[in-house]
Amino acid sequence: MSNIQLDDLDRAILRLLKSDARLTIAEISNKIGKPESTVHFRIKKLQEKGIIDKYTIILGEPLKPKHLAFIILEVGRPIIEDFLERYVEYITKTLSALPGVLFVAKSGPDKIIALVGKNDKEELLKFIEDNIKSIPTLKNVVVLPVSEIRKGEDIAGFLAEV
Amino acid sequence: MSNIQLDDLDRAILRLLKSDARLTIAEISNKIGKPESTVHFRIKKLQEKGIIDKYTIILGEPLKPKHLAFIILEVGRPIIEDFLERYVEYITKTLSALPGVLFVAKSGPDKIIALVGKNDKEELLKFIEDNIKSIPTLKNVVVLPVSEIRKGEDIAGFLAEV
Repeated sequence: MSNIQLDDLDRAILRLLKSDARLTIAEISNKIGKPESTVHFRIKKLQEKGIIDKYTIILGEPLKPKHLAFIILEVGRPIIEDFLERYVEYITKTLSALPGVLFVAKSGPDKIIALVGKNDKEELLKFIEDNIKSIPTLKNVVVLPVSEIRKGEDIAGFLAEV
Repeated sequence: MSNIQLDDLDRAILRLLKSDARLTIAEISNKIGKPESTVHFRIKKLQEKGIIDKYTIILGEPLKPKHLAFIILEVGRPIIEDFLERYVEYITKTLSALPGVLFVAKSGPDKIIALVGKNDKEELLKFIEDNIKSIPTLKNVVVLPVSEIRKGEDIAGFLAEV
């Protein structure tokens, strides 16, 4: 972050594209009061520098899971310590392939964080019970149902799969 | 999800737009072997039905925080139970306004989940120590540094602020 020189104009353009990536050069030029050629040049530079990585869509209500839960899995340390990494890797891979699992990350040597989304609470809890709590070699599973998203609320529509 | 009828063509279009929302109708038409008029009509419908909610950009490496951590905050139950909601609300609001806090959600009556991103590990830990662990009325704080994202890895570039 610190090596990147972004001025107010770059930031204004990035914010506009974040809110609507379909805005045309002309529309952006209008909104920020700078010539189209400037806007065009800046966007080109932002793309070349990799500051804009991708253009994507956020899925709306009909495809967005209504109920989310973060799940913290703690993997039990096996008698042969060396197997821990393999266990964590196996569970990470298994989780990633399950339908409705939106996000999976490793945390430290023995923990995994997952975000799961389903359309109703019962389905979500049943899924966790059947598919996650049943994974062997787990020492502990903490389920944190999301009751209200305050920041980053588009996360479900962004991560949802088609 | 169940009320929405999406066929293979809709899904193919959505997947293409997810991977690159700048694809033109002609390019999509080419990739999936259907007439441009069909693609145009389908995208129009997907937007009208709110299945495509927004078009956005994902920020790349230069603006993406390199180190992420999930933080689970448990708020202590006050003597006057009724104050718990107010405490949780206050902390949620405070967290959401802090720089580098990418995501904040409430979980149940007394827990808050946050995702924090900074450019180096020390900065991240110092930030948590100074700005989060110091919040009064907290009963417990669990910090889960993200060591590897396996699914949903664009999350930081999506949530990062400019």
